[in-house]
Amino acid sequence: MNARAGIIVTGTEVLTGRIADRNGPWVSEQLLGFGVDVAHITLCGDRPDDLTAQLRFLADEGVDLIVTTGGLGPTADDLTVAGVAGFCGLTLRHDPELEQHITDILRRWRGIDGRLPAAAAAGVHKQAYVPDGARHIPPTGTAPGIAISRTDSVPAIIVLPGPPRELRAMWPAAVATPAFTDVIAALPALREETIRAYRLSEAELADTLRLAEHEIPDFDSLEITTCIRGGEIDMVTRFAEDPSSPVAGSAEHSPQPRSPGGRAYARLVDLLTDRHRAQIFSTDGSTVDDLLAAALTGRMIGTAESCTGGKVAARLTDRAGSSAYTAGGVVSYSNEVKTNVLGVPAEMIAEHGAVSEQVAEAMADGARRVLGTDIAVSTTGIAGPDGGSPEKPVGTVCFGISVSGSPTRTHTIRFPGDRATVRALTVTAALHLILEAVGS
Amino acid sequence: MNARAGIIVTGTEVLTGRIADRNGPWVSEQLLGFGVDVAHITLCGDRPDDLTAQLRFLADEGVDLIVTTGGLGPTADDLTVAGVAGFCGLTLRHDPELEQHITDILRRWRGIDGRLPAAAAAGVHKQAYVPDGARHIPPTGTAPGIAISRTDSVPAIIVLPGPPRELRAMWPAAVATPAFTDVIAALPALREETIRAYRLSEAELADTLRLAEHEIPDFDSLEITTCIRGGEIDMVTRFAEDPSSPVAGSAEHSPQPRSPGGRAYARLVDLLTDRHRAQIFSTDGSTVDDLLAAALTGRMIGTAESCTGGKVAARLTDRAGSSAYTAGGVVSYSNEVKTNVLGVPAEMIAEHGAVSEQVAEAMADGARRVLGTDIAVSTTGIAGPDGGSPEKPVGTVCFGISVSGSPTRTHTIRFPGDRATVRALTVTAALHLILEAVGS
Repeated sequence: MNARAGIIVTGTEVLTGRIADRNGPWVSEQLLGFGVDVAHITLCGDRPDDLTAQLRFLADEGVDLIVTTGGLGPTADDLTVAGVAGFCGLTLRHDPELEQHITDILRRWRGIDGRLPAAAAAGVHKQAYVPDGARHIPPTGTAPGIAISRTDSVPAIIVLPGPPRELRAMWPAAVATPAFTDVIAALPALREETIRAYRLSEAELADTLRLAEHEIPDFDSLEITTCIRGGEIDMVTRFAEDPSSPVAGSAEHSPQPRSPGGRAYARLVDLLTDRHRAQIFSTDGSTVDDLLAAALTGRMIGTAESCTGGKVAARLTDRAGSSAYTAGGVVSYSNEVKTNVLGVPAEMIAEHGAVSEQVAEAMADGARRVLGTDIAVSTTGIAGPDGGSPEKPVGTVCFGISVSGSPTRTHTIRFPGDRATVRALTVTAALHLILEAVGS
Repeated sequence: MNARAGIIVTGTEVLTGRIADRNGPWVSEQLLGFGVDVAHITLCGDRPDDLTAQLRFLADEGVDLIVTTGGLGPTADDLTVAGVAGFCGLTLRHDPELEQHITDILRRWRGIDGRLPAAAAAGVHKQAYVPDGARHIPPTGTAPGIAISRTDSVPAIIVLPGPPRELRAMWPAAVATPAFTDVIAALPALREETIRAYRLSEAELADTLRLAEHEIPDFDSLEITTCIRGGEIDMVTRFAEDPSSPVAGSAEHSPQPRSPGGRAYARLVDLLTDRHRAQIFSTDGSTVDDLLAAALTGRMIGTAESCTGGKVAARLTDRAGSSAYTAGGVVSYSNEVKTNVLGVPAEMIAEHGAVSEQVAEAMADGARRVLGTDIAVSTTGIAGPDGGSPEKPVGTVCFGISVSGSPTRTHTIRFPGDRATVRALTVTAALHLILEAVGS
């Protein structure tokens, strides 16, 4: 009933690990949104035989759709169009209109009025070849995409460029091609819901899911994936359901008749919130960043960071519009800055150490005063690899949360992992501690 | 002559894009270091048939080695060991010693003296099954790896767990297994060299490489990959060469006889530095972070960040030992913090706007004064999506570099892309501007 797809990511730089692929996961998520299951993502270098082998593999696996990314550039090692055309038994046909269109884009980019330099013109000419009978997807960079409808012998194939920005800009046109719409025409509507928890272990969640399997009728109509990330655990559930009917939250609030999946999911949400109320912070897909942005409305926050070195402030300001509630922060990496900028007494640092709840408290209070905010959060810890001691091993982090009108709270958490992991876990913890202090 | 490998990354959360795979690229880089070419990386969900299909595909492609990651957990949907054993025609054998070993690890983690809870014990029992004739790789988490030597019908297979930290900790043991050493025994020594440039376009580099192809004998013995990342371009070159002979830099400095690849590479380095001297900042693989750490020795740096929101300070403190040269920073996201903490005159902001070279200069000077450092860098810009104007469109960023004893320098750069891209490109630019100001 579902359609299955494969994604081929091309590029030696991705295959050899010098650049992380951002297209495979993104396309996979988009396809899931259409109810298309991605069975395989494959990465290959700029070697024609390997590309052909992967196309053959996916076709043999019976996928309905293949999406390729990358290999559409102007240079000779960009071989995807030729490879896909060869695989489908189509000859390449030059499209003069398309060549003119790409030429115009390139002229505009480079501010050229007349003819392109010969090397550039040769590249554009190469990019304007389209497999006979296929449709091109207009380029947003210089590389057009290709859409080839399925036949009895080959699946539908959508060919897209490698730069993530170009690929994403071209996606709406790609999914509007007959090659794509033909694949998704017969699919049932699919619903995807996300629950997020903090400090809930995978084992505890697995235990609850085992119980759910016994207790909830039609539990097997739910497809559940769990994913651990930075101290949080996400549980994503997919099921066939009319997209217009409400699902999240308790069954009482939504009296509409549901699909078996919709009913099972409502009961699952009840069971999970019953057993893990303290850990589940979101049942509607909101992230901690979303919730924090909402909770901070009308107030200003600042940061005082030592071990995280600015990562908490950077995370807060990742969101567009964050200036409405983020004033800024002080990165007090050295003790001098802790003392001279935030006003942490040097004697306090000497007595308790820079990594102590006393210093975390003084940092948060100091940041609130210096930055003139309603709320401030502080982090001071031992990210490693050096600097640990038996009493304060690597991974020990102290937090302070200063909120005007309330006593300042402090916390100490010991995180596992290497320097980067400790810093990342500290950022997530800081956000949750702020949310606890100011939320609801 | 080279060995070829395939990597299978398992896990529905990776396939569906909810978590980015970090294992495929990492294992790929490690294998390249041994001279093993990765031909394919494939991702599959927790579906046994898809795993078997990928194993079959890679074996049919004739790879010498398959490395799998993930699917070794205690729960029923962790199926990799059973899938690999089935593919190789091996039966699973329970290993009581291994079960005891995992039990001990789990007891230590959970602080349990006596028996494990029944659910945990069942999970451990499952994890202690090893394919008959295979060797287990001792776990660092709770999941042991597996190493299966190649036969006439199947390639060597190394099975490793999904959590990147566990996988990396187990890698040295994995590559010491006979299954692995047998694959790499006959490979020639391979050399990998990296050249890095900033603000050099891919087209300019391609142009130089075309010239090199004509001019340099044995140029085709070099395997060159280029990769663009955050405004930098990396060029990685691999060739057969005795690892003990010097390669990077000019041919004059290393009179030893070389392989054809070594000679060609030395000439390529000369040609590149001739044509792109201003853009190439590293010919020995050093990153801008490495060079900056060296250039800052004996001096202290601070930051004043607006649009980057702490990301420059976070990048500086990503390195262990960065406290030797990083004092900290001020994230002056709001104009009030620019004025009240950094001392930027409110009238200056009113007159020139917060995004101006005047304000960037005042921020950098203010940061140097407030933080008591020798050097300070500032960023103030329009990251978007809103806030742009015809004179200062989204992507416009002003920088200030304040060095004690020198006039403060300012720069304005207009970056392409969305909010995250503009912020990332700004961080890289800030590092290069500091390096220009303080380096060599």
